[in-house]
Amino acid sequence: MEQSSVFYIEQNLLPFEFRIKELKRYSECCNVIKNMGVRGAGAIGAMAGFAMALAFIEVRSVNPLSFVRKARKEIELTRPTARNLFHATERVYNAGIISAGNAVAEALKIADKDADDSMKIGKSGSTLIKDGYRIMTHCNAGWLAFVDFGTALSPIYHSQQEGKNIFVYVNETRPRSQGARLTAWELNNAGISHAIIPDNAAAYYMSLGKIDLVILGADRIAMNGDVANKIGTLEKAILAKEFGIPFYVAAPLSTFDPQSRSLGDFIIEERDENEVLYQEGPDEKGKMHRIRVCSPGSHALNPAFDATPAKYITGIITEKGIILANEESIRDMTFSS
Amino acid sequence: MEQSSVFYIEQNLLPFEFRIKELKRYSECCNVIKNMGVRGAGAIGAMAGFAMALAFIEVRSVNPLSFVRKARKEIELTRPTARNLFHATERVYNAGIISAGNAVAEALKIADKDADDSMKIGKSGSTLIKDGYRIMTHCNAGWLAFVDFGTALSPIYHSQQEGKNIFVYVNETRPRSQGARLTAWELNNAGISHAIIPDNAAAYYMSLGKIDLVILGADRIAMNGDVANKIGTLEKAILAKEFGIPFYVAAPLSTFDPQSRSLGDFIIEERDENEVLYQEGPDEKGKMHRIRVCSPGSHALNPAFDATPAKYITGIITEKGIILANEESIRDMTFSS
Repeated sequence: MEQSSVFYIEQNLLPFEFRIKELKRYSECCNVIKNMGVRGAGAIGAMAGFAMALAFIEVRSVNPLSFVRKARKEIELTRPTARNLFHATERVYNAGIISAGNAVAEALKIADKDADDSMKIGKSGSTLIKDGYRIMTHCNAGWLAFVDFGTALSPIYHSQQEGKNIFVYVNETRPRSQGARLTAWELNNAGISHAIIPDNAAAYYMSLGKIDLVILGADRIAMNGDVANKIGTLEKAILAKEFGIPFYVAAPLSTFDPQSRSLGDFIIEERDENEVLYQEGPDEKGKMHRIRVCSPGSHALNPAFDATPAKYITGIITEKGIILANEESIRDMTFSS
Repeated sequence: MEQSSVFYIEQNLLPFEFRIKELKRYSECCNVIKNMGVRGAGAIGAMAGFAMALAFIEVRSVNPLSFVRKARKEIELTRPTARNLFHATERVYNAGIISAGNAVAEALKIADKDADDSMKIGKSGSTLIKDGYRIMTHCNAGWLAFVDFGTALSPIYHSQQEGKNIFVYVNETRPRSQGARLTAWELNNAGISHAIIPDNAAAYYMSLGKIDLVILGADRIAMNGDVANKIGTLEKAILAKEFGIPFYVAAPLSTFDPQSRSLGDFIIEERDENEVLYQEGPDEKGKMHRIRVCSPGSHALNPAFDATPAKYITGIITEKGIILANEESIRDMTFSS
């Protein structure tokens, strides 16, 4: 954020084009979150914070305060799952009551804290990674999904800096293919050995003993350790347990939802079926096309997330260290200073 | 097969174009099997039989018999997994030793038997399906994959004829999307309610109690009941067991491999990474494009099948009825007349 502009990396153009765009109104930020130009728990949180701050700047010329309340609601309606979003709007809203400048400062604080948390998660998480490890990840919880470093990929980046030899199995993560498009792009840029695999192949590589560790991110964690994350997380968690492979979730405290005791009745965001039915990408000459990849006349279902019960999760990597996915450990951590 | 031509439906054009093509040489048949213009256990078996018969017709003008032996080897190298392929080449080869006409007759017999088996599988399998059932299937084991009816879809077609109300969850089945492209196409043509889901969403719908039954096909079944089938089958089997959902494999006797006691050390066909990295389909004007769907610079792994241990399989639906996936039941059935 700079003066009254927000800058972001348009992720819908990746991995084929890297473009930084500028936003000047909170409603533009809402659209970007909605259409997933910005996605990933931390990045959504940071953007929501900046959107809330922009609303306080805009209200100076509009008035009254009901404008800001309406803006908060709009921002919170963009994506219902990412806990970080609500965490950010609440903090920036409360700060903005004092002054617009205070709202901006709070939004920047959230973004800085997010980068700092990610770094600490990398340090903690890398203690789980031995030299030669083959790690599976799902979706994208790298630096694109956060302000920097990311969560699931942060321990991998940290291990690389420590000189460990690692290999990453990147689940494609249909329908939006954040694994194949974003995680693969990040790892390729960082020079970390990896291969994209179809989501269907996860159990196959697990059954061959080729996966030492699974690490992925979270969009919301309940107080009992249940984790909402990208669709397919539940599958991978069950499979990892079946094959005795450690399954870790990496997330900052801002992803924990003190209001949710469990995710038993958690409502999953259903997104547009066209995300399944169509795919976009460049032909060999680099020209972009949107093509149908499913039979014409058929429809698709597109749940964006699933809820993974705590019993399948080996542990949660946070900025305060690695904890077990149960109520006692989570309360201990969230209440400690 | 007609005179010395083989006619087949080019499946790589589906679901966007339905075209029947003609082949006149066994080597053309090999190419079609290799590039999956014909795929599916039964259809591969039938095509392999016709290819073997064509070789006997071709040898009349070429000689000597070593030509036919070489042809058999070539045919058997096209796809290493489908048991039906080897079953067909062996039978037609032995028949062809007598005469080319005898080879053709044997190939036709295999194709007819396949259609008949599929019909019987439909009848048996439909006893598992109650009115209102929601069934999950993976890949395509419908009439496109066999000479007629199919295996996994045959009980569904039969249930429809009996007037049962059913709904089918169609796993997309990346990377080649046989679920989204072929199974959805078949079900849509048959007027059976269905929805395509990303492979990642299978556990989600299972966890919600929305799946009553899983039925899918097989490319090879060992004598202990282990099943080789499309990549992702192992995942779905483990998940079904976890959620207590009956998991059935539908396959004719010709898919059972008397030479394999188990699939413990079964070698999986690795296919070209480009099947994962690129997708083909029409834009909104119907013009076909091949686009990249993964990050440039990254590579992919593409195992075509996996092996599912018998312990995850509730039962196997065959033309002789439904049996348990264990050695005793399989030997009883294969030795009974």
